[in-house]
Amino acid sequence: MSEELYNENTSIPFGKSGLIQKIKEKTSKYNSQTVFSIGDDASVSNFKDTEMVLSKSLIFAEGIHFDLTYTPLKHLGYKVVTAAVTSIYAMNAKPIQISIALSVSNSIMQKHILEFYDGVHAACKNYVIDLIGGDITTSKKGITIAAFVTGIAQKDEIVFRSGALPTDLLCVTGDLGASYLGLQLLEREKTIFNSNPNVQPELKGYEYVLRRQLKPESPKDLTDYFKKKAVKPTSMISLSNGLASEIINLCNSSNVGCEIFQERIPISSEAEKLAKEFNIDPVIAALNGGEDYELLFTIPLSDYEKIKNNDMFSIIGSINTLDKGRNIVMQDGTIITLEPSLNNQTFQNVQ
Amino acid sequence: MSEELYNENTSIPFGKSGLIQKIKEKTSKYNSQTVFSIGDDASVSNFKDTEMVLSKSLIFAEGIHFDLTYTPLKHLGYKVVTAAVTSIYAMNAKPIQISIALSVSNSIMQKHILEFYDGVHAACKNYVIDLIGGDITTSKKGITIAAFVTGIAQKDEIVFRSGALPTDLLCVTGDLGASYLGLQLLEREKTIFNSNPNVQPELKGYEYVLRRQLKPESPKDLTDYFKKKAVKPTSMISLSNGLASEIINLCNSSNVGCEIFQERIPISSEAEKLAKEFNIDPVIAALNGGEDYELLFTIPLSDYEKIKNNDMFSIIGSINTLDKGRNIVMQDGTIITLEPSLNNQTFQNVQ
Repeated sequence: MSEELYNENTSIPFGKSGLIQKIKEKTSKYNSQTVFSIGDDASVSNFKDTEMVLSKSLIFAEGIHFDLTYTPLKHLGYKVVTAAVTSIYAMNAKPIQISIALSVSNSIMQKHILEFYDGVHAACKNYVIDLIGGDITTSKKGITIAAFVTGIAQKDEIVFRSGALPTDLLCVTGDLGASYLGLQLLEREKTIFNSNPNVQPELKGYEYVLRRQLKPESPKDLTDYFKKKAVKPTSMISLSNGLASEIINLCNSSNVGCEIFQERIPISSEAEKLAKEFNIDPVIAALNGGEDYELLFTIPLSDYEKIKNNDMFSIIGSINTLDKGRNIVMQDGTIITLEPSLNNQTFQNVQ
Repeated sequence: MSEELYNENTSIPFGKSGLIQKIKEKTSKYNSQTVFSIGDDASVSNFKDTEMVLSKSLIFAEGIHFDLTYTPLKHLGYKVVTAAVTSIYAMNAKPIQISIALSVSNSIMQKHILEFYDGVHAACKNYVIDLIGGDITTSKKGITIAAFVTGIAQKDEIVFRSGALPTDLLCVTGDLGASYLGLQLLEREKTIFNSNPNVQPELKGYEYVLRRQLKPESPKDLTDYFKKKAVKPTSMISLSNGLASEIINLCNSSNVGCEIFQERIPISSEAEKLAKEFNIDPVIAALNGGEDYELLFTIPLSDYEKIKNNDMFSIIGSINTLDKGRNIVMQDGTIITLEPSLNNQTFQNVQ
């Protein structure tokens, strides 16, 4: 292909072609829809007999969406893929392909780019998706990442945000707030380290919250679970922002109200413990934190028997008519109106 | 949809939802493949009975790929779309959809974003493509743009870089070097203006080269022309970098050599004139300048009768076996080996 030689210590962009070749060599093909991937002006696919689900173009900017002081590049590559595929799962679809472009300054070494793509490749294997594009351009400063994902579904399987109906059960996968608390921990240790570089960061015992922040996983088995149980959610949305914002987004799209119960919001014991240490209410971390990459969805009440006792998601409340508002019932019985958090973008808690 | 109000003088990201709603309202749907576009976690499409051609994720960074001192945002929106669709035309395919995300600092006004999207919408109309995503996130400084395009083609219509064969004619659409010279003109006037803001820029008489730099057009009718003439190129590549680099890329992919003739390289009279003013050889501008967004392709010699006397492209040389090298025959008969230009990315000539 290219005559350019690859040297891991040379900078971008002069080693660009050799680097893309290196990334291409490590790229596996998992899906028959991908006909031709990296190495031309565009890739070629065939999506016969399925609807195609296309994500937005997503942008992640250094200093805004991630901090390289404490984010290993391999984890960052993995996290970008997780963030991107979650938007496809949120349509009740199966992700198939991802295209990832980087804009990096000349000070970045090629080996760093390959570390990033190692994470991308690991995530592609986990989510069984094909990397179909890997462009690299120059930036004046820092790293910016763009991602785009394709997915498939049968037409009648696709779930939008807009279908929630009164009496539907409101459900959420996994647990919430851990990613936000993991970030607070990393920020605290960074501050301590900056004022005294001899102090080693104290991260022991917090492996779970750190993993939720640095290398989150998307609930990839949910779509299959629904198929097996013959259940179709009436609406679904990804939880890239805090729970409160996303509930409000879903309710706005569906033109409904809702009631959720504080005690039913799933929070891990490690997150509870760390929240106490930080004097943060863990429920506030769940409502406003963000970056959970879980799924929020609604199920008809009549399907309750089919989905009870599952270990993938929790029922946190139910949908009401619009006039009832969007409320959270606290443990002491007081009712509070849900408000969107100020953080209204993914990866955005850094600084 | 969102309850957030739109106010053109507020900054991003707090007005984000209102702004995306505003962009959505201005978005037309041109293609039946687009089932559902902006307003959920992902868009939905149906590409039954066609192959699908997917671009790379493309990134354009302020200060590297564009300079807002002299680039109107509306033109920038148009140019990003032109750059992106050219990669689909280069596969002999028809672009169908584009997704564009922006990462902007808080100092950017919403009205500026809408100006950018006005250019995007104008380009979508021109290229008959649907805008299917318009995400906006925050950056620490400056604007970064990510774009992703989808296109369609019948399987046997798709053209790769890798099919060129000895004796094929090497052809290029439009004319070359004007965009690069337009950029030199803008940079010169910027330098003059910076040292003396009372001097008005002298741009009269250079409308063509400026348009080629600021609001370039992609040769969108070429695919239809090939169909009408029953000609299929054996290879094709987009000219985002200089002609020399892209010829070498095409020859590398096809494992062939080539010979081109200096006198056949299409250069506009305005570009010739401006090159003289700058003491630049216009052929060097064509070979190394970049950002032409034209198409370079090869046609079997046996199809010469079908394509002669067309006004869309020029025959600049022919393909040789690999051992003959990649050469340019100068007007005085000397033969020079083609070398890739140092600029190896799109939009990259600024600074």
